Amino acid sequence: MTWPEFAEHVARNPVVFLPTGMTEQHGPHLPLGVDFQLPLAIADLVAREIDGLIAPPLHYGYKSMPRTGGGPGFPGSLGLDGATLSAILRDLIRELARSGVRRIVVLDGHLENRWFLTEGIELAVRELGEHSPRVVCMQHWDFLDDETMARVFPEGYAGIDKEHAAILETSLMMHFYPQHVRLDRIPDEPPLAAPPYDTWPARPEWIPPAGALTSAKPATAAKGECVADCYRRRISAALRAEFGLGARS
Amino acid sequence: MTWPEFAEHVARNPVVFLPTGMTEQHGPHLPLGVDFQLPLAIADLVAREIDGLIAPPLHYGYKSMPRTGGGPGFPGSLGLDGATLSAILRDLIRELARSGVRRIVVLDGHLENRWFLTEGIELAVRELGEHSPRVVCMQHWDFLDDETMARVFPEGYAGIDKEHAAILETSLMMHFYPQHVRLDRIPDEPPLAAPPYDTWPARPEWIPPAGALTSAKPATAAKGECVADCYRRRISAALRAEFGLGARS
Amino acid sequence: MTWPEFAEHVARNPVVFLPTGMTEQHGPHLPLGVDFQLPLAIADLVAREIDGLIAPPLHYGYKSMPRTGGGPGFPGSLGLDGATLSAILRDLIRELARSGVRRIVVLDGHLENRWFLTEGIELAVRELGEHSPRVVCMQHWDFLDDETMARVFPEGYAGIDKEHAAILETSLMMHFYPQHVRLDRIPDEPPLAAPPYDTWPARPEWIPPAGALTSAKPATAAKGECVADCYRRRISAALRAEFGLGARS
Amino acid sequence: MTWPEFAEHVARNPVVFLPTGMTEQHGPHLPLGVDFQLPLAIADLVAREIDGLIAPPLHYGYKSMPRTGGGPGFPGSLGLDGATLSAILRDLIRELARSGVRRIVVLDGHLENRWFLTEGIELAVRELGEHSPRVVCMQHWDFLDDETMARVFPEGYAGIDKEHAAILETSLMMHFYPQHVRLDRIPDEPPLAAPPYDTWPARPEWIPPAGALTSAKPATAAKGECVADCYRRRISAALRAEFGLGARS
Amino acid sequence: MTWPEFAEHVARNPVVFLPTGMTEQHGPHLPLGVDFQLPLAIADLVAREIDGLIAPPLHYGYKSMPRTGGGPGFPGSLGLDGATLSAILRDLIRELARSGVRRIVVLDGHLENRWFLTEGIELAVRELGEHSPRVVCMQHWDFLDDETMARVFPEGYAGIDKEHAAILETSLMMHFYPQHVRLDRIPDEPPLAAPPYDTWPARPEWIPPAGALTSAKPATAAKGECVADCYRRRISAALRAEFGLGARS
Amino acid sequence: MTWPEFAEHVARNPVVFLPTGMTEQHGPHLPLGVDFQLPLAIADLVAREIDGLIAPPLHYGYKSMPRTGGGPGFPGSLGLDGATLSAILRDLIRELARSGVRRIVVLDGHLENRWFLTEGIELAVRELGEHSPRVVCMQHWDFLDDETMARVFPEGYAGIDKEHAAILETSLMMHFYPQHVRLDRIPDEPPLAAPPYDTWPARPEWIPPAGALTSAKPATAAKGECVADCYRRRISAALRAEFGLGARS
Repeated sequence: MTWPEFAEHVARNPVVFLPTGMTEQHGPHLPLGVDFQLPLAIADLVAREIDGLIAPPLHYGYKSMPRTGGGPGFPGSLGLDGATLSAILRDLIRELARSGVRRIVVLDGHLENRWFLTEGIELAVRELGEHSPRVVCMQHWDFLDDETMARVFPEGYAGIDKEHAAILETSLMMHFYPQHVRLDRIPDEPPLAAPPYDTWPARPEWIPPAGALTSAKPATAAKGECVADCYRRRISAALRAEFGLGARS
Repeated sequence: MTWPEFAEHVARNPVVFLPTGMTEQHGPHLPLGVDFQLPLAIADLVAREIDGLIAPPLHYGYKSMPRTGGGPGFPGSLGLDGATLSAILRDLIRELARSGVRRIVVLDGHLENRWFLTEGIELAVRELGEHSPRVVCMQHWDFLDDETMARVFPEGYAGIDKEHAAILETSLMMHFYPQHVRLDRIPDEPPLAAPPYDTWPARPEWIPPAGALTSAKPATAAKGECVADCYRRRISAALRAEFGLGARS
Repeated sequence: MTWPEFAEHVARNPVVFLPTGMTEQHGPHLPLGVDFQLPLAIADLVAREIDGLIAPPLHYGYKSMPRTGGGPGFPGSLGLDGATLSAILRDLIRELARSGVRRIVVLDGHLENRWFLTEGIELAVRELGEHSPRVVCMQHWDFLDDETMARVFPEGYAGIDKEHAAILETSLMMHFYPQHVRLDRIPDEPPLAAPPYDTWPARPEWIPPAGALTSAKPATAAKGECVADCYRRRISAALRAEFGLGARS
Repeated sequence: MTWPEFAEHVARNPVVFLPTGMTEQHGPHLPLGVDFQLPLAIADLVAREIDGLIAPPLHYGYKSMPRTGGGPGFPGSLGLDGATLSAILRDLIRELARSGVRRIVVLDGHLENRWFLTEGIELAVRELGEHSPRVVCMQHWDFLDDETMARVFPEGYAGIDKEHAAILETSLMMHFYPQHVRLDRIPDEPPLAAPPYDTWPARPEWIPPAGALTSAKPATAAKGECVADCYRRRISAALRAEFGLGARS
Repeated sequence: MTWPEFAEHVARNPVVFLPTGMTEQHGPHLPLGVDFQLPLAIADLVAREIDGLIAPPLHYGYKSMPRTGGGPGFPGSLGLDGATLSAILRDLIRELARSGVRRIVVLDGHLENRWFLTEGIELAVRELGEHSPRVVCMQHWDFLDDETMARVFPEGYAGIDKEHAAILETSLMMHFYPQHVRLDRIPDEPPLAAPPYDTWPARPEWIPPAGALTSAKPATAAKGECVADCYRRRISAALRAEFGLGARS
Repeated sequence: MTWPEFAEHVARNPVVFLPTGMTEQHGPHLPLGVDFQLPLAIADLVAREIDGLIAPPLHYGYKSMPRTGGGPGFPGSLGLDGATLSAILRDLIRELARSGVRRIVVLDGHLENRWFLTEGIELAVRELGEHSPRVVCMQHWDFLDDETMARVFPEGYAGIDKEHAAILETSLMMHFYPQHVRLDRIPDEPPLAAPPYDTWPARPEWIPPAGALTSAKPATAAKGECVADCYRRRISAALRAEFGLGARS
């Protein structure tokens, strides 16, 4: 997209998606980029529904924590400090606003990012005051509905904390990026067994050595498709409501 | 406690608790200080079990967010920027380490604090390197066990996000600080009805006007005592295990 | 105080006190909390006079310096970096303003805090522009009048720099918190003998080993009462004048 | 690439490329992503020569300046503050080092980035001390040799400052990403006519309205291929020398 | 001084002076540069005594405050934020240390600078750890002895706070830089009449309109010479003791 | 200049120059202060032409880099972090604006400063919004015209990068400050032979050991005068045009 094309799009006040994620271990069967690949694919699905634009994604996010992503013991997890991530968000919202964008959706795929994204948006909105765009911030798994949950986790859901490199992410990757999944390497280890607190230094004995916090064995592309469809429907409905967009003709 | 007393205590390598919280609206029936009063009371309970010390608490924490604390629309919610809170944690861990403390427990009572506490600890531990104390960070509700949950939430648990100024916090306040609870003012409003994302500017129509995100009507002091006892047992057991402390004689 | 009570108070435009201090060694006879306990007690006295509110105090302040507080060699002195303290002030003034507060008094009890409090207020006032509340910043000892000085220091006043854990603070603690003073442990050492400059690394040989920079032996509760009364009268008079409040009916 | 694959690669001490760039107007004929697309393609070329790895690129860089990129007047130029960009670099070098990487090449495609990349590397290297990897930072156009220059700019070279969206970048895009170039929209405007200083507010009258600082009309895919080949040869030779790698077998 | 000369000097481990000050109003009779001109002149005097070096001075310091410098209402007072000044000090100490300097004296002439200089030194010393130089920080007026005070202020000393652009600074300027003093413009206004606290917004009615906080009428060059001589003797004696230098032969 | 004089000048809306530079090695024949001495002298020349004011110069700038200034291996090069330099600029522009200044020229003499000056101005201008002064930022060598270049570099110009302590700076110093040039010590070494990238750690073997990146042997005072005259004419013409000043009567 060239700048005159961008300007033309912006003139009709579209929703602009900023996909955010991380470069982080996702077990031996998924690539390091899962956390930005998924938001990008989901943003693409939803943007088609509501005629939105997608800004280039953030490839790096907040540091991986042991209980939610395996933590710093895994090579290839490349995290930013919290203030760095917040500053990126603040700067990009400021710049999108300067470019005329009035509707922004931060679509995140890395659990640890949430509060630093929040803070970055807070800082931008405070700075921009009445000139601030409307900003929405979401993490995709929060849009799972009961029906989808029942299909994807027929034996129960351990919570998103433990879904790192597990059924949800693997199924979505099998659906969106099948060529990036090494089905033969899905580990079959006991899940994360961590007490309900964080500790420094980290305790590697809590973490499944292969890095998937629950087994991804039950993942299937069909489940991924089911989740993707749920996201497409529910996120676009939410954004239509939020931004007062007409239903799709 | 004077400094020679502190030095004497530190010489036997105690666990030092840093209670963290917030000054924030908690409905018309609870004081603004709930989020620091509870960690202080819980730290007191646990410190007695394991002969720990308690550092003066933090009265201010990360900004209240609409979906978890009612947000900035309520007077009296006085929040810090994320980087400020992280800097406080980093500084205090550095200083406790300098004072000879080797075991630190950050005991938090404000949901929104978690990741900025995490980042503050990360910064301190990275700076201190091999001289870093062992640090544990916890939010009290994560220590609720199934049995206690069943007693406190017989009709089901909406998730800690919606427990702001609701059954859990009100029961604990009735137990620990009965004089601070205005039973006659517990609101009976429908709970928070928010979609699964954040939005700027906030949407006041999502938030119960009185500020309790679920009704606190079912709260009782007995429930509070039950939770407190659960915390006392489970947190002290966790810390004994974590720090290799002997069982209480 | 609940948030509706807070909102009600704020509606009548009260003076809101923010007591600031430090957790810092105060000799073998005073607790680590002197520097926040005294501003809290003084704020309480004055707030009664002018119907003010008191925000939860800051328990941590700028790092103890050798010539004014004994410095980093004493366990239990837990200081913040200057930028951290300034950020706290900036954030809290911004948030008080958002809550509708128009009159703020920062009442400090830790000499080293002054300029970082100043800077925090500067940053907030600059950011808030015309929406800034009126802010007053004071350190309590600056309100000592000649008559009180003559009674408290009949043999001469060494300057507030050397009053750390000495006559003034001990007398005030004996008055406000007698149960926290260990009269039998007041040291009788020669006072701080330091040249007129700071040096890094610190020179421990300048500092009295027990941490009181001048002997507190002449301290009495009666002197403390006399000082407290002076503060009550003079600070409330100053604030009435500053904020255009009517005399007390 | 999964984390075990990454770990395996890192074990043989490879050169890791971090492509950096910007999302910025590049005239009506080139996409907003030129500045990260080119370093990514060049890194790919060179990495094949020296068996290197490529980290996910940075899509956002320092703010576009009028004399070198058209400046903030163009929609779609989304820049970061300098400190944000430096913090990203500092964090990523720290994290790559933690992951075991000992050889890093920052390969940049956005002129304005240079000094903030430099500062980020400075901060990381200072922090890591003796544990720092060896880091190289380059901007691709600095590897143009005289022969290539003669072929690409037969009528003279205005300097890299004026090459924004002009012959060099357009030729390279035609070579690497022909589907992204709108040949029919290459503007034919007079070049940037700016005095030798910056001014705030910017002077739009200095900037060609379409955003290409010199005409890209003479660009050809063959020129792009010639440049790419020059880069491949010269950058891989430089890195072999710099890191003591053997010549390619 | 060239770099080989600097290196030669540093090889003998000299005391290096960093004069710090401010560009700030000093009444209608003194130039804006008093606060850096005086430390520079004093450093020159003392450096001759102890064979020291002088680094280029800082021309800008912390913001002028109403009660100590007249405050922001005066044109020409150009202050830095506290964090900026601290960062400068931190950076310069780090760099002097890298250059081999082991003995640093920060010699300040602007009252408001003290705590931000302190913090900058704290940050540098913490970062440098065992590689830190020894650093001394002083404000020149703290070296006035009783005898000199008696000669300079025969009618009593109002405290350094009120000496802004008054007898002390004017006398020193008359001694060191007579050509920069406009004797005919020394104002004869009543001194600063401010209560013992700061207030935002500032109260211009507290400040003498011409900007000298006490009358400088009694200033003389002879007094300036007397003070300069006192400084020369006492500061060089202090530094000889502090750094273990031999007495001057 | 006193503050009333400053205020009087400002009332006629003058151009205010802020000379910026560095304390940095400049070979064995030039003093460490070249980079601030030259902008100060040039500002003086131009200010006379357009009746401008000169603010006290910055003596310290961004860190010396090996390929442009010899780098950190030379004693006496005392650099600031990038964020520090940007903060100074931001603060000073804010303060000049507060003092009523509407026209600011940052006149720089240290190549490495450029982008951090730019960022500081960006930050100030963004903060000040519509209240921002007009700011110009320049590096003096960018005003060399072809005729002057031909006279100064009859044998060709290696680019400003390699002119560190070489013909341009030495000639200008011989013209402006002949007493500070050690003609007999001009080194005659081969010039900098560095590949087109930066590397950490630095490679000292790239740098001429004496620190002049090209030989200064051809420098003469006459060349310096020629350059100075070119600067005087061209910079004052540019500023007259930029600020809409009348031609000199």
